[in-house]
Amino acid sequence: VATELEIIERIKSMYPKIGDDTAMFNVSHIPIVSVDSFVMKYHFGDYFTPYDMGYKALAASISDIAACGGTPKYALISLGLQEGDIKFIEEFYTGIKTIATAYKIEIIGGDTIRSSNFFVSITVIGETERLIKRDGAKEGDVICVTGELGGSFAGLLALNEGIRSALTKTHLNPIPRVKEGKELANYVTAMIDISDGFTTDLFHILEESKVSAKIRCNDLPINKETKKIANKFSIPLQEIVLNGGEEYELLFTIPKNKINKAKKKVDFTEVGEIIKTKKIKIVDEKGKVIPMGGFNHFRCQTKGEKNGKKV
Amino acid sequence: VATELEIIERIKSMYPKIGDDTAMFNVSHIPIVSVDSFVMKYHFGDYFTPYDMGYKALAASISDIAACGGTPKYALISLGLQEGDIKFIEEFYTGIKTIATAYKIEIIGGDTIRSSNFFVSITVIGETERLIKRDGAKEGDVICVTGELGGSFAGLLALNEGIRSALTKTHLNPIPRVKEGKELANYVTAMIDISDGFTTDLFHILEESKVSAKIRCNDLPINKETKKIANKFSIPLQEIVLNGGEEYELLFTIPKNKINKAKKKVDFTEVGEIIKTKKIKIVDEKGKVIPMGGFNHFRCQTKGEKNGKKV
Repeated sequence: VATELEIIERIKSMYPKIGDDTAMFNVSHIPIVSVDSFVMKYHFGDYFTPYDMGYKALAASISDIAACGGTPKYALISLGLQEGDIKFIEEFYTGIKTIATAYKIEIIGGDTIRSSNFFVSITVIGETERLIKRDGAKEGDVICVTGELGGSFAGLLALNEGIRSALTKTHLNPIPRVKEGKELANYVTAMIDISDGFTTDLFHILEESKVSAKIRCNDLPINKETKKIANKFSIPLQEIVLNGGEEYELLFTIPKNKINKAKKKVDFTEVGEIIKTKKIKIVDEKGKVIPMGGFNHFRCQTKGEKNGKKV
Repeated sequence: VATELEIIERIKSMYPKIGDDTAMFNVSHIPIVSVDSFVMKYHFGDYFTPYDMGYKALAASISDIAACGGTPKYALISLGLQEGDIKFIEEFYTGIKTIATAYKIEIIGGDTIRSSNFFVSITVIGETERLIKRDGAKEGDVICVTGELGGSFAGLLALNEGIRSALTKTHLNPIPRVKEGKELANYVTAMIDISDGFTTDLFHILEESKVSAKIRCNDLPINKETKKIANKFSIPLQEIVLNGGEEYELLFTIPKNKINKAKKKVDFTEVGEIIKTKKIKIVDEKGKVIPMGGFNHFRCQTKGEKNGKKV
């Protein structure tokens, strides 16, 4: 067990600016900021290595910035730590460093305090030329997603059973869609990252834009591996695909006449259409209402309820 | 006990932007940012009401911004909560709101998650025309402080014994020196807020500026009430004044020829002078080394060791 001073020194040697009281930064265009907090036993399952925790904690805030069409530039890392395991800290910061380097994010500050449970709170500052929000979806707009759906949740199911699958990385080390978000910002009317699950996040757009959605369930892009896992665990594929969170894919609405242009820049799948109804809802191609996954800001619980295990 | 949804709704009704994934902001001059985290049982004593916790948590980051000569503009509040006591949350946010309003700070975001212990992590974004750091102190500069020293620690001692004193507010609801910091930025060579204690924070300036300090202990500004409390508890006054933290007064170095101009704008006391020695140290007027209060980023411990109680 390392002393607290040793831990602080180690963190300072990796990130000299953590521990400074105030940091300077520099943004052009529209400055944006996002904060995400995580608590070990609620948000990170036993199968998360310290590396994975660091990686994923920073990934979440990067993804928030991406969903606005923005570019992340700086991060501040606040850590609450019990008695110190210096190896844990080193691996945690290696995870942070890996994704920070990949996205050219500079760690400009943060603090480290004693806490009876581990928590991390990450602030990411970025900039965007055009701020994309959730309130611009219009009747007739096409609903689209980048990448594939359900992969993170399927990866989690596999991990819970101790099975390593091709989707493990999708859950532990997701890839926020910064490049895609920046391109899409030129075309979309509303955008969000899929962190709470497809239906829940779509509903955020619908509520703020005061519209409804018709989804073609058969068009939802699903990885083969996700299908296999759904089968293996006898869980309805639809449950995994519609309600699985932490995808970090982008869900957006786009006018029909901009789809071709956007497709030249970014890969995505058209999965439905914005419609107008009296009460806001999501329906399938037959007009049947698609029920929502439980929405809860205490994200842990939502996830816990889904699979019966703490994650 | 309120349900989690009720808590989230209550927070949202007070601060609609908390819970949004990303916030826009607007800064001119040099943008600066500061993060401070607190854990209930380590940082806040039993005598802290939820109001005091909210107030002081935000005050700490405001003070960091003030020490750079900056103006705080925006805050993001990340909360980790156990099962919900909605009254606690309301009072906590009333404390936040009181100081945010006083300093014209807009709450633009944050998140709320479940945690087995209460923590709060606050990000404050501000701006400054001239970024004051700790590395500019020069031989011959005068060492000065705003306000009085030892009041917060004396207030804490009194609170620990259940005595309400005139210094109670100094400890629970300190007043960050934003106006003063902004004015002083035009004259000073280095500045810091006294959060770890006078000697420890002075040492930060000395280390970064590679200089030493001669302090005239008899000139240190001390409140009458602080003297009374030191007497009452038979604690050396010097211990309280030199090592008591969480003052949120400004400690700065200023060239002799700028003192008169600065004094027309801000009240402060001259307490010593920057000198050059082989090894960095703080000495009194007789040249005797003044030992430092224990420095520890896990602030709780430093405090805990001082008074034998957790704070």
